[in-house]
Amino acid sequence: MTRLLKKMSHKTGSPPGTMMHVGIEPLDTKLHYIRYNEQDIIELPTDDLSQLKDVPDAVDWVHIQGLKDIEKINKIGQHLEVHPLILEDIFNENQRAKTEDLEDGIFVVLKFINYDKSTNQISIDQVSIIFRGNMVLSFQNTDFPIFSIIRDRIIKASGRIRKMQADYLLYSLVDLVVDNYFTVLEALDDDIEVLEEILIKNPHSEILQEIYRLKREIIVIRRAVWPMREAVSTLNRFDNPIVNETTHIYIRDLYDHTIQVIDTAETLRDMISSMLDIYLSSISNKMNEVMKVLTIFAAIFIPLTFLAGVYGMNFHFMPELALKFAYPIWWGFTISIVVLMLYYFRKKKWL
Amino acid sequence: MTRLLKKMSHKTGSPPGTMMHVGIEPLDTKLHYIRYNEQDIIELPTDDLSQLKDVPDAVDWVHIQGLKDIEKINKIGQHLEVHPLILEDIFNENQRAKTEDLEDGIFVVLKFINYDKSTNQISIDQVSIIFRGNMVLSFQNTDFPIFSIIRDRIIKASGRIRKMQADYLLYSLVDLVVDNYFTVLEALDDDIEVLEEILIKNPHSEILQEIYRLKREIIVIRRAVWPMREAVSTLNRFDNPIVNETTHIYIRDLYDHTIQVIDTAETLRDMISSMLDIYLSSISNKMNEVMKVLTIFAAIFIPLTFLAGVYGMNFHFMPELALKFAYPIWWGFTISIVVLMLYYFRKKKWL
Amino acid sequence: MTRLLKKMSHKTGSPPGTMMHVGIEPLDTKLHYIRYNEQDIIELPTDDLSQLKDVPDAVDWVHIQGLKDIEKINKIGQHLEVHPLILEDIFNENQRAKTEDLEDGIFVVLKFINYDKSTNQISIDQVSIIFRGNMVLSFQNTDFPIFSIIRDRIIKASGRIRKMQADYLLYSLVDLVVDNYFTVLEALDDDIEVLEEILIKNPHSEILQEIYRLKREIIVIRRAVWPMREAVSTLNRFDNPIVNETTHIYIRDLYDHTIQVIDTAETLRDMISSMLDIYLSSISNKMNEVMKVLTIFAAIFIPLTFLAGVYGMNFHFMPELALKFAYPIWWGFTISIVVLMLYYFRKKKWL
Amino acid sequence: MTRLLKKMSHKTGSPPGTMMHVGIEPLDTKLHYIRYNEQDIIELPTDDLSQLKDVPDAVDWVHIQGLKDIEKINKIGQHLEVHPLILEDIFNENQRAKTEDLEDGIFVVLKFINYDKSTNQISIDQVSIIFRGNMVLSFQNTDFPIFSIIRDRIIKASGRIRKMQADYLLYSLVDLVVDNYFTVLEALDDDIEVLEEILIKNPHSEILQEIYRLKREIIVIRRAVWPMREAVSTLNRFDNPIVNETTHIYIRDLYDHTIQVIDTAETLRDMISSMLDIYLSSISNKMNEVMKVLTIFAAIFIPLTFLAGVYGMNFHFMPELALKFAYPIWWGFTISIVVLMLYYFRKKKWL
Amino acid sequence: MTRLLKKMSHKTGSPPGTMMHVGIEPLDTKLHYIRYNEQDIIELPTDDLSQLKDVPDAVDWVHIQGLKDIEKINKIGQHLEVHPLILEDIFNENQRAKTEDLEDGIFVVLKFINYDKSTNQISIDQVSIIFRGNMVLSFQNTDFPIFSIIRDRIIKASGRIRKMQADYLLYSLVDLVVDNYFTVLEALDDDIEVLEEILIKNPHSEILQEIYRLKREIIVIRRAVWPMREAVSTLNRFDNPIVNETTHIYIRDLYDHTIQVIDTAETLRDMISSMLDIYLSSISNKMNEVMKVLTIFAAIFIPLTFLAGVYGMNFHFMPELALKFAYPIWWGFTISIVVLMLYYFRKKKWL
Repeated sequence: MTRLLKKMSHKTGSPPGTMMHVGIEPLDTKLHYIRYNEQDIIELPTDDLSQLKDVPDAVDWVHIQGLKDIEKINKIGQHLEVHPLILEDIFNENQRAKTEDLEDGIFVVLKFINYDKSTNQISIDQVSIIFRGNMVLSFQNTDFPIFSIIRDRIIKASGRIRKMQADYLLYSLVDLVVDNYFTVLEALDDDIEVLEEILIKNPHSEILQEIYRLKREIIVIRRAVWPMREAVSTLNRFDNPIVNETTHIYIRDLYDHTIQVIDTAETLRDMISSMLDIYLSSISNKMNEVMKVLTIFAAIFIPLTFLAGVYGMNFHFMPELALKFAYPIWWGFTISIVVLMLYYFRKKKWL
Repeated sequence: MTRLLKKMSHKTGSPPGTMMHVGIEPLDTKLHYIRYNEQDIIELPTDDLSQLKDVPDAVDWVHIQGLKDIEKINKIGQHLEVHPLILEDIFNENQRAKTEDLEDGIFVVLKFINYDKSTNQISIDQVSIIFRGNMVLSFQNTDFPIFSIIRDRIIKASGRIRKMQADYLLYSLVDLVVDNYFTVLEALDDDIEVLEEILIKNPHSEILQEIYRLKREIIVIRRAVWPMREAVSTLNRFDNPIVNETTHIYIRDLYDHTIQVIDTAETLRDMISSMLDIYLSSISNKMNEVMKVLTIFAAIFIPLTFLAGVYGMNFHFMPELALKFAYPIWWGFTISIVVLMLYYFRKKKWL
Repeated sequence: MTRLLKKMSHKTGSPPGTMMHVGIEPLDTKLHYIRYNEQDIIELPTDDLSQLKDVPDAVDWVHIQGLKDIEKINKIGQHLEVHPLILEDIFNENQRAKTEDLEDGIFVVLKFINYDKSTNQISIDQVSIIFRGNMVLSFQNTDFPIFSIIRDRIIKASGRIRKMQADYLLYSLVDLVVDNYFTVLEALDDDIEVLEEILIKNPHSEILQEIYRLKREIIVIRRAVWPMREAVSTLNRFDNPIVNETTHIYIRDLYDHTIQVIDTAETLRDMISSMLDIYLSSISNKMNEVMKVLTIFAAIFIPLTFLAGVYGMNFHFMPELALKFAYPIWWGFTISIVVLMLYYFRKKKWL
Repeated sequence: MTRLLKKMSHKTGSPPGTMMHVGIEPLDTKLHYIRYNEQDIIELPTDDLSQLKDVPDAVDWVHIQGLKDIEKINKIGQHLEVHPLILEDIFNENQRAKTEDLEDGIFVVLKFINYDKSTNQISIDQVSIIFRGNMVLSFQNTDFPIFSIIRDRIIKASGRIRKMQADYLLYSLVDLVVDNYFTVLEALDDDIEVLEEILIKNPHSEILQEIYRLKREIIVIRRAVWPMREAVSTLNRFDNPIVNETTHIYIRDLYDHTIQVIDTAETLRDMISSMLDIYLSSISNKMNEVMKVLTIFAAIFIPLTFLAGVYGMNFHFMPELALKFAYPIWWGFTISIVVLMLYYFRKKKWL
Repeated sequence: MTRLLKKMSHKTGSPPGTMMHVGIEPLDTKLHYIRYNEQDIIELPTDDLSQLKDVPDAVDWVHIQGLKDIEKINKIGQHLEVHPLILEDIFNENQRAKTEDLEDGIFVVLKFINYDKSTNQISIDQVSIIFRGNMVLSFQNTDFPIFSIIRDRIIKASGRIRKMQADYLLYSLVDLVVDNYFTVLEALDDDIEVLEEILIKNPHSEILQEIYRLKREIIVIRRAVWPMREAVSTLNRFDNPIVNETTHIYIRDLYDHTIQVIDTAETLRDMISSMLDIYLSSISNKMNEVMKVLTIFAAIFIPLTFLAGVYGMNFHFMPELALKFAYPIWWGFTISIVVLMLYYFRKKKWL
């Protein structure tokens, strides 16, 4: 199962602002730049960000994948005058989702959730976005091409993205991260549906493991999702003049989606809890069944065995033994006991 | 059981404002128009909404049932200058109930709940309402004639609906959706009453399935009902000059009803939870009973069987065997053990 | 057990403002009028309310018991210019407790709780009060003479009621309803005390039914009591000039009482929940005891029976059988096994 | 166990402001007066409070113990112009802790908690304090000398109490009541520590009774303690000019203590809940152990008994019986079954 | 396990402002002074604090370890004009984390958490910090060198600490305490991961003890951590001009960390609760398995033993006994019963 915390104890005690990667093994750093406006689009050829300057009419999107090359990312940060504490946050994968006002821009940290259907595993990747003027800087530390859909959309000029400013790009990135939660929650909802079927028909013990896995995953998702609400709501509240009025409508819509994600996560959590309660009860139910079978067998045959034992005794003087019809009488007696017991258990509704 | 989420994963990643239906199989699109004032009522004959213009004195109600014909609905939307994001919301059945201010009108999304008594199934349909000036546009995607009662009321001019403006029509539609929850909650209350009776008298295992069904249904209802509170409260708070003072009293009443619905849902939820707790305890109780029966039988007859076994042994030198009254003495001993055990269990209050 | 919801489904869909009784079978309508001031008191002789007009110096109290005669009550309402929605609320017994500002008065809905000691049944009656100028109108739909104490107090001029205005009468009525909750909560507290005694000494299965009854009753009471807090607090916050300064102190005191009622209800609920938890644990405990008895009997006698069985075998060559002291040796062996087993179970603290 | 509610049903329906004692049997009324300033201290000799008038330089403390003499207390109240509703509150021991603004003073109701170590019983006494100008009036209805420590401190002039005004005396009284909760919570913490030890080592059934007692006591304490927070916070917020600036620092400190009390009570409650959960699980664990012992015995010896039974049958033609080594072979077979079963149970980790 | 409350009952009743140590055995008092600015650093040689005066350019840090010498600490306090109530708080280890405005400075109380990996024990030490002008006074009562990392950093001039004012030193101390929680939470997260592995594979009874330990520790951590949020948030909100603008960014970052700590603690708590639920269910599961084994053995062999017993009876007239193939027929019958039972249990999915 996914660990909750990325190991960071080695960092405790180092002075604040120290650049040090906290989290899973960082990947090699790769940069992708795109500069576009409604008419043109350039994929910038250089690895050297010092050439990058805000061009008033175009939108610049720098996407940095893999956080291994601390040196290089640091240099980019210094070039763009990013506060050391912001850079520290980008390197620390234990951040909660949040939105910070940078005076001349916005800094957003989000948790991208990824569900591997083959292994039923959830993984959570941290995505950091700096938005400033006409430029958007985004960071991630995994192989998964989170934002490739948006790159495609820009290149193919589909939707309105090419007609809009950098704030719309920021919105698009955040929206993609939020919408992806639905995919994961749907997958969990599917799993729950399957489990419910089993739970009611034949609750075996593997189901418990499944319920626990779901419960744990929903705990992890909730942890990622609740702070996102505040992050998006902060985005929504910004009076930042660099966010255009037209984009504001989209951000409000984005906030609605975030609430929906939380709402769904909470409902799924309620359902999983209910399933566990029901599971416990149905296990008790099954044990009751088992006990009844045992009790019926024992209650019928133990007295009979005793009866058989009686006439297996070797006392010299046992008058019954010599009776002619003793044996059939004994059987009659025995069978009538069985019938009586069955009648008794039927009346008790055990049969 | 009803799925929580309508499949929408295929939509993730498409640019915002894309019209695409998310939810159950959409039905064929049918339009119903009514134009009425206190004196007259016209059921408009055309399928072409471009003829529709706000007539100052009359109320126009366009009800669109079935969301299959995206093209047509889109055209209507454009004709009436509805924002693409609003249209997207109408097509997406995963919306939460909400009220949005459209500057020149109000957009309301609600969840209509439907309880099929024959199958004990709850289904939830999304209803969207756009109110603007003298026009009300309503959308639904199911066969169930949700608003036919209101159409009848308009046609028969019963109540005050013909004397009022379009804002009262909006209120009437929302009120119908809210009031319908009572019907469903009452049905659940009936089910609970029946279950309680069984629970106390004879808790068998089918009841667990029933409790689970109720628990799940109340989870689904709560999810539909809580956002409705905010939606209606927003409606209540509107300073929108297009909502008349007279209608405001009705909307306040509507808000009261919504609170009552939530309140009842929460109480039912408490009751179902209590039932589950009690069920678990009574299953344990019953197992206790079963165990006692088993233990009494075992504790009485196992020692006796041993005693019988003793005198079934074939040792050559067993002086008791030859005694004249050994057999009756043995019976006396055996019976006194039974009596003692019964006394012991009675003292323990097991009998 | 009391139903949660009074049947109202037949009303869903009827236009708002429709007068229709929702709830238990309505009783015949009876009117009681009293007009009083410090010096005089008149029990008005007429059944016709049109004679009733606010007399500046006197307080008029009209108490209407039984809501069957919708016609008549409706006429009174129209005569006194009561809004149809208010009248609808009076007829609908599914209201929550609430206080509404009527501009020229106050409308209060309360739930009167009644505990029938003989049947251990709680019943909840709706009480509606309209206060306006010098007049108080109160409505109830049950036989129980809720307000007879106050009528007596007015007639005997005990306390300060005759010296005060109609707002004090309003306060007195609400105070009576609130204080009555204490009686019921005390009765529940008594029941809990009795159950606790049993729970610890000898938790049998009937107690579960009792716990469930209490749990359900406290759910019903909480549902009645929480909205009352808001109702009384609204009363408290009124800047309504028709409520006198002197009465305000009493209303603040009333609010204190309401909080106390809620507080007590919540505490009782906690206690009942604890009892259920404890009950489940003690059932498990008892089962453990039963299991131990069974296991001890089985573990001692089953091996012995086997040993007896061995020497009951009919093999031709069993050298032990012919030994002179085989039988006493066998007994010695058997008894030492019993002793060993007893020692083992004693060490395990099962004995 | 302590009852939650003091019997008050006999009071329901009596007009507000009726002086009637509600609670445990009231004690005889005794008055203790002290008048002090920095230099002098007088224990006033008279029983007649009409002599008592605020002397500007001195602080007057009247402590009334035992609320039996309603007449006398009433007279004191009237002499000091205390509102009848305040007096009613003093007599009613079902009050919640609260602070009320009396315009010219403050009225505080508190719950003093007392833990009798010999009986493990908690008792709760109501303490009422009226503070006005230079006078403090305090009321209690039990024998326990709650405030004797403060009287001693005044007499010995220890601490700063003699140098301060009456507001500091008020603070000292409240502080004593609050601090006393720590003593009780510590005692509970001790009990919990003892129980934990037992719970993990050997959870027997008496522990359940203990857990229940603790759970119930913490419910009672929480009920007393939560309203105290609001009472002290109200005291803290007072802009009342009669509370001096220097005393304000102490009251803020007092508020800190109150929060700490609540915090500790909540944590203890969490712990007790955890203990109950653990208890339930360990009972199940123990039952599992018992069941395993039973199953191992039964599974080994029941088949063996069958085998012995087979060769105890009296069929005339049973070729094995006559074999020479049949008996030792039988034993070999039997023992190998035992070994196999033991191996099987060992592999299942039951042994 | 760590006690929740440090014994303080002996203090109840002593006048406020009394210096008396409450908590674990106090250590001998040792003072460490450092005076530094960007260029120089002096470890002050004297034990006499009266020499200490705020030097405008330098930062003075006095760290007092061990609270035994009340006299001496008191003198320092008086010399620096610390309010007696503040000193009382320093000596009382039952404080909650808090931040208080001292008009000319800030007083912070924090809980330092320490996790001893060898014993799996958590201990909580109270740290008090007074910040005023250019001076920071810190207090602790344990051997553990909490702040030695910061002393090293000052001495080696690593990071920016030597370039900053005393407010940055305050921040560094608080940051260290907060960051340390991550170390502890990580250790718990490790423990949980190990337990989860066991829980699913083979839930034995020692795991319960482990879960309880974790549950208790998380209760203790939550109690320490929640008030810290308010303490740091108060620090954050201070408009105190003595906290520089540059330091404010760091304090905001610190607040983020605190929220993260709480968030993680809450998630761990959820996980532990889930584990307990799952544990209870899997114990029930295992018991079910045990019961099935027992029932299968009993249900098969008890009837067989009866059958064997029948033909062990000594009736004189039992025609079957003399039949030639009676014995093999009996075996055939017996084996077919076994086969039938096995088939039955297989159909019931018990095998």
